[in-house]
Amino acid sequence: MNKHTLILNDFVIESHVKNALNEDIGFGDITTDSIVSKDKTTKAFLNTREDGIFCGVKLFRKVFEVLDKNIKIEFCFNDGDAIKKGDTVAKIEGNTNALLKGERTALNYIQKLSGISTHTNKYVEKIKEYKAKVVDTRKNTPGFRLFEKYAILQGGGSIHRFNLSDCVMIKDNHIKYAGSITKAVELVKSQISHTHKIEVECDTIKQVIEALNAKVNIIMLDNMEISDIEKSVKLINDNAIIEVSGKVTLENIEKIAKTNVDIISTSSLINKAHTLDLGLDF
Amino acid sequence: MNKHTLILNDFVIESHVKNALNEDIGFGDITTDSIVSKDKTTKAFLNTREDGIFCGVKLFRKVFEVLDKNIKIEFCFNDGDAIKKGDTVAKIEGNTNALLKGERTALNYIQKLSGISTHTNKYVEKIKEYKAKVVDTRKNTPGFRLFEKYAILQGGGSIHRFNLSDCVMIKDNHIKYAGSITKAVELVKSQISHTHKIEVECDTIKQVIEALNAKVNIIMLDNMEISDIEKSVKLINDNAIIEVSGKVTLENIEKIAKTNVDIISTSSLINKAHTLDLGLDF
Amino acid sequence: MNKHTLILNDFVIESHVKNALNEDIGFGDITTDSIVSKDKTTKAFLNTREDGIFCGVKLFRKVFEVLDKNIKIEFCFNDGDAIKKGDTVAKIEGNTNALLKGERTALNYIQKLSGISTHTNKYVEKIKEYKAKVVDTRKNTPGFRLFEKYAILQGGGSIHRFNLSDCVMIKDNHIKYAGSITKAVELVKSQISHTHKIEVECDTIKQVIEALNAKVNIIMLDNMEISDIEKSVKLINDNAIIEVSGKVTLENIEKIAKTNVDIISTSSLINKAHTLDLGLDF
Amino acid sequence: MNKHTLILNDFVIESHVKNALNEDIGFGDITTDSIVSKDKTTKAFLNTREDGIFCGVKLFRKVFEVLDKNIKIEFCFNDGDAIKKGDTVAKIEGNTNALLKGERTALNYIQKLSGISTHTNKYVEKIKEYKAKVVDTRKNTPGFRLFEKYAILQGGGSIHRFNLSDCVMIKDNHIKYAGSITKAVELVKSQISHTHKIEVECDTIKQVIEALNAKVNIIMLDNMEISDIEKSVKLINDNAIIEVSGKVTLENIEKIAKTNVDIISTSSLINKAHTLDLGLDF
Amino acid sequence: MNKHTLILNDFVIESHVKNALNEDIGFGDITTDSIVSKDKTTKAFLNTREDGIFCGVKLFRKVFEVLDKNIKIEFCFNDGDAIKKGDTVAKIEGNTNALLKGERTALNYIQKLSGISTHTNKYVEKIKEYKAKVVDTRKNTPGFRLFEKYAILQGGGSIHRFNLSDCVMIKDNHIKYAGSITKAVELVKSQISHTHKIEVECDTIKQVIEALNAKVNIIMLDNMEISDIEKSVKLINDNAIIEVSGKVTLENIEKIAKTNVDIISTSSLINKAHTLDLGLDF
Amino acid sequence: MNKHTLILNDFVIESHVKNALNEDIGFGDITTDSIVSKDKTTKAFLNTREDGIFCGVKLFRKVFEVLDKNIKIEFCFNDGDAIKKGDTVAKIEGNTNALLKGERTALNYIQKLSGISTHTNKYVEKIKEYKAKVVDTRKNTPGFRLFEKYAILQGGGSIHRFNLSDCVMIKDNHIKYAGSITKAVELVKSQISHTHKIEVECDTIKQVIEALNAKVNIIMLDNMEISDIEKSVKLINDNAIIEVSGKVTLENIEKIAKTNVDIISTSSLINKAHTLDLGLDF
Repeated sequence: MNKHTLILNDFVIESHVKNALNEDIGFGDITTDSIVSKDKTTKAFLNTREDGIFCGVKLFRKVFEVLDKNIKIEFCFNDGDAIKKGDTVAKIEGNTNALLKGERTALNYIQKLSGISTHTNKYVEKIKEYKAKVVDTRKNTPGFRLFEKYAILQGGGSIHRFNLSDCVMIKDNHIKYAGSITKAVELVKSQISHTHKIEVECDTIKQVIEALNAKVNIIMLDNMEISDIEKSVKLINDNAIIEVSGKVTLENIEKIAKTNVDIISTSSLINKAHTLDLGLDF
Repeated sequence: MNKHTLILNDFVIESHVKNALNEDIGFGDITTDSIVSKDKTTKAFLNTREDGIFCGVKLFRKVFEVLDKNIKIEFCFNDGDAIKKGDTVAKIEGNTNALLKGERTALNYIQKLSGISTHTNKYVEKIKEYKAKVVDTRKNTPGFRLFEKYAILQGGGSIHRFNLSDCVMIKDNHIKYAGSITKAVELVKSQISHTHKIEVECDTIKQVIEALNAKVNIIMLDNMEISDIEKSVKLINDNAIIEVSGKVTLENIEKIAKTNVDIISTSSLINKAHTLDLGLDF
Repeated sequence: MNKHTLILNDFVIESHVKNALNEDIGFGDITTDSIVSKDKTTKAFLNTREDGIFCGVKLFRKVFEVLDKNIKIEFCFNDGDAIKKGDTVAKIEGNTNALLKGERTALNYIQKLSGISTHTNKYVEKIKEYKAKVVDTRKNTPGFRLFEKYAILQGGGSIHRFNLSDCVMIKDNHIKYAGSITKAVELVKSQISHTHKIEVECDTIKQVIEALNAKVNIIMLDNMEISDIEKSVKLINDNAIIEVSGKVTLENIEKIAKTNVDIISTSSLINKAHTLDLGLDF
Repeated sequence: MNKHTLILNDFVIESHVKNALNEDIGFGDITTDSIVSKDKTTKAFLNTREDGIFCGVKLFRKVFEVLDKNIKIEFCFNDGDAIKKGDTVAKIEGNTNALLKGERTALNYIQKLSGISTHTNKYVEKIKEYKAKVVDTRKNTPGFRLFEKYAILQGGGSIHRFNLSDCVMIKDNHIKYAGSITKAVELVKSQISHTHKIEVECDTIKQVIEALNAKVNIIMLDNMEISDIEKSVKLINDNAIIEVSGKVTLENIEKIAKTNVDIISTSSLINKAHTLDLGLDF
Repeated sequence: MNKHTLILNDFVIESHVKNALNEDIGFGDITTDSIVSKDKTTKAFLNTREDGIFCGVKLFRKVFEVLDKNIKIEFCFNDGDAIKKGDTVAKIEGNTNALLKGERTALNYIQKLSGISTHTNKYVEKIKEYKAKVVDTRKNTPGFRLFEKYAILQGGGSIHRFNLSDCVMIKDNHIKYAGSITKAVELVKSQISHTHKIEVECDTIKQVIEALNAKVNIIMLDNMEISDIEKSVKLINDNAIIEVSGKVTLENIEKIAKTNVDIISTSSLINKAHTLDLGLDF
Repeated sequence: MNKHTLILNDFVIESHVKNALNEDIGFGDITTDSIVSKDKTTKAFLNTREDGIFCGVKLFRKVFEVLDKNIKIEFCFNDGDAIKKGDTVAKIEGNTNALLKGERTALNYIQKLSGISTHTNKYVEKIKEYKAKVVDTRKNTPGFRLFEKYAILQGGGSIHRFNLSDCVMIKDNHIKYAGSITKAVELVKSQISHTHKIEVECDTIKQVIEALNAKVNIIMLDNMEISDIEKSVKLINDNAIIEVSGKVTLENIEKIAKTNVDIISTSSLINKAHTLDLGLDF
């Protein structure tokens, strides 16, 4: 059994990496090409200068494979593993020119992703005694979502819907245009595939009751006080998955988890994450 | 005169935005398409819930134009303008379905970019009395560099080279493979276009002297103590542009600027920036 | 309220249509370019030579808009409307050269899609007195799925999951590799997003009971006899959505629907559909 | 000597297959990735459940190679070979996760193509005693023409022009805009490359005579009665290739072939073809 | 009637032009963006500094339309028109920033194409009294063929096959692998579409006779002496189109045309052409 | 040390080559596919029929690798090497069908590039005794610049800026819109990255003085008389790089070089170059 769903497919990564290399190389690495012969080979070590959760094996590898198909990379850690300051994460041997040319792009991927995994893991650790899972939102960097969601999984988090097409999420404006939660759910049920779930965003206990009666799959309690969350949990009584969202922090997440909700969603997994400091030593 | 160089070209934005919409819409917005007729129109307001520097006019507009070519968007602020919590940043009128479908992607662009502009501006403010400019590095999100650099400019910052092809940057490994700074510069000079500058990364005063003798355009003082920076400034004596890099923070940037260096570069402009909280109200 | 979910987005269509035009035009329409001046305009009528359900407004329009941005097309019918042999479906006025150049591609889209809508509608009509919805499968023409699914909706059908990422479907091989339905469901539940449903393919009553106990959202009865379907319906007793699949025909679909299942899925909606004969008359 | 012209080039297939895999995998195969470890390997067999003509070796192989570059696939039949219900068409050994992930896409290609080859072959068999070849038209699925034409060749058929640029085809509207067949041919001859043939669509004997006098390469008899076809054949007397088109069926094709025409073209080779039932057994 | 076949389709041009602009603009026109406000408009004139045949209306226009959709361009000459040193070829009014940014790319297209049209026209003029047409070959700049062939047509030339798929051309190596011209033609006839012509490259009179007996459509006399060309013309006696190729120059083309051949093909139309000097004056 | 900067990256070449092959192959090489079995292998030799400088190893190799991944190509010369009429430049062994199919595209790349290298080398030879380097301009074939610049380097030339983003070039129109050279330079300095140089185009000695006072990096003397160039060289006195441009020919380049300028730029390196005649012999 693999540790996490969402195996990154090679051909998808390859296309993203080539685009990133084009962005960083422009028409050529004028420094390296002037100094380093195209035939030299060298060894390098990927070391971490910070503790954290590592993420990005396939992307790191692909950057160098695109530049040197004979590159040899041996990873000492896998995605999702905890790494300690000073650890050697990977050993690389290959064309020197390619190593120098790809270094920044390869590090950009893994520093960013490991940063997200590391930050996510802090939330996960806070609530590991509880039923609740911490999940992300759709607040992503355009063009980078797949990797950001992957990093959240590697940090021990879970993920929300991937995009607008894999789960219905009825928000305030949808309710407004439909007339009511009841009508919105009705419309949706008459239209969508039987393979999709319906989630409704509720601001009040009254809305929770309406959503419950409309038999939706997931009820999101949006920006509710802890006391109202507790009331909702009782009301819902396992007849829908309960998700809490809004102003979740490392400080208050345990308090929320204690209410026995199923899901806590927050954009801070990504938005508050900083890059993890990993470097290449030659 | 326009405020900042780097005007984002429409056809470049359009291609990025379409990719982002594909990522977020998947095969369809099953919620909105089920609830909101494709013929309704509505008004919405882009409001900010936080103080900051706004950035992203063209991207925000393009997201909605791709979904509804008749959309009307009037901006009350331009890129680079300071906005205050509660300000209405833009007024939008157009197809309701398109507004709901594009909302998240449009916000993802401007929240991210305004976050970078806002954060950059804090560094800029700290050193506005000094000659030094604060600039970014190549530590970017793969596929998002153009916009990240643009946001730095809008925040009042300046930018470093765009990629590996528009300026030579001789780093420790290049020096190692060439044999010395002198040899590295020689090799580079024999190869590159006369239109490109040469920058050398120096860790020690000794290296600074060698770089100076090699007549390079920019000398980067990497992770040096303030006292060594001061010595270097005297040594260089305006015969090269002086850039300081390494562990720059909001706390120590003024101290660095006081040494009279020209450029202070730091990846924290992007890495430590958080998204700025802007929202769409219907 | 709009009739069907899944509004085709213009920018997605445009990209597909341009690819199709490149395929059909090659380096140029050597016949039309030799004969028809590029400045002439003409009128044409889209007529149907067969009864059916029309589908393809946006694709038909886009083909000609790509070739002549000033083209005027007025549709007398919408997607999903019944059309009768001899009906004029649309009136077109625009550049003659563009009309002749785009004719085949435009017709290829709507003949194919209207054929699917028309064929789907026959199944829909057969079971309109029953609760069951008829849905498609993932047996599509590579590169054409979005449009095929859209056509099924316009024919009054409903759709199954769009691809491998929007609903879990545990099939025989998954069960084999996991060890049992119970173990497969457990693994899946520990991994997937709370926003996704789980469907299990069952060949026997025994498997149905196991799936039911594993609390899945959808149980697919694969190639079961009517008597076994009836038993399963009783057993499941509304605790899961019931889908029937395998050898569904226009002849036996009503018999299946009578068992009170929720969903009947079949690849014949697409595979047995023929193009609908629509033509352009100048 | 190879059996049929039009060897599918690997890089063209690869690009089509990657697009198809993106369409079917979305952001991930959430079922398989949750259940099947990424390191397992397995054997599978491609078996046919129906008699027919097999087509799709390269596409089937490429789907799996994109997902697992070490996959081993051994084909027992080649494109164009007759296969019998129960035959094992190929043996596959490789990464289990890749096999399950690529199964549907691989089957979609070969079921569709083998269906066309099989159906085409029925027409071919009907007229194998005659000079006439059966060919397709430009009524294709947008984005799939290359493969559809390839499948027709594998079924023993021949093909018409590939697109609007490799042969002139003067149709009724062209004649109308030119004024007459004579004028249309004149215009075309003054413009096109000497490397291209000219075909004219004729509805009447009178038009056939005009086309003949205009010295065109191919005369298409469109929707003519058998008696008029016979008259035309005599008139043309080998001075042009004779093509018959319009309402060709398996029932009447032999009658047409008996008139001694060269080419019989029909869109039914594709439009009336159903998928051939091939499946993967693990 | 339009002057020349091969009308360039707008969507094809747009894609080529965007790629060219990306190549030339990189991440931004740092000069123009720093100096010229994005709101200024200006007038400019496209003037020619040399006599020649103009070619490139659509490409020139598209470059500026991509950068400024409100640009106004009025052409005083059409593709294929003779222009004289000092002529104003077009008047442009639009965004100054866009004009400066697109200038080089727009000029690169039309200088190159007008150069080819102009050079082609010299060959055309030399043989205008004769039946022969001068045509190009497949010796093109990769990625630029469509435009190069278009320019040849505008210069009054005619074109050879567009690529490997629109006409059979049996060359020395094909003959070698088939065994003989006769066998090669036989193989080809058994395989290709009835819509394609067959051309055979012949080095000797003996080969001409063999090709003639094999009933091919076009016989190419490759690098033959004038006397052998004359013999071949008699032998062929209008039973095939006669093409002459090899070492064609402006000096000897009339001598070749005098032999009464149909086609003279030469790569010098493109290879020996220089850019025509057109410039933008503000 | 490698001979020249600008190492062509494999993934960039691959994408260009695939596009070129699509352009030349269309839907198939109907001649070769009809005649040459897909399993045959053969040997071929790349020979040169002219003296010159060879350029294009990687592109030539890639064309065939895309068509036959097992192709073996051994080069007897490297990019930048002088080759003599009759020399065998490379030995190739691989799939016959692939060799015939790729021949034209592979030759198109190297004939064009070797032509540019060869022509550039003539200018280089003329001034090899002097300090001056000969460089290109931005007058390129759209979509082919990277390769054209690469060929110039292989011919011993040097290159100018790659595009609008890697060096500031203030031209007459920029000066006009800014008001003066001084103002233009001021505006630019306030905006651009410290990593970019500034070049100013000067028509008169007066402008040279103004540019010099504005402390720019490069002064281009545009279309100046030799006497004015000499005056400028004295005036500038090594305080800026001196570039001469305008009407440079093989005849006058030495005279210009004698003035002791640093750079001589001319579009004729590309525009006046003809293809070098290399051929494939089987």
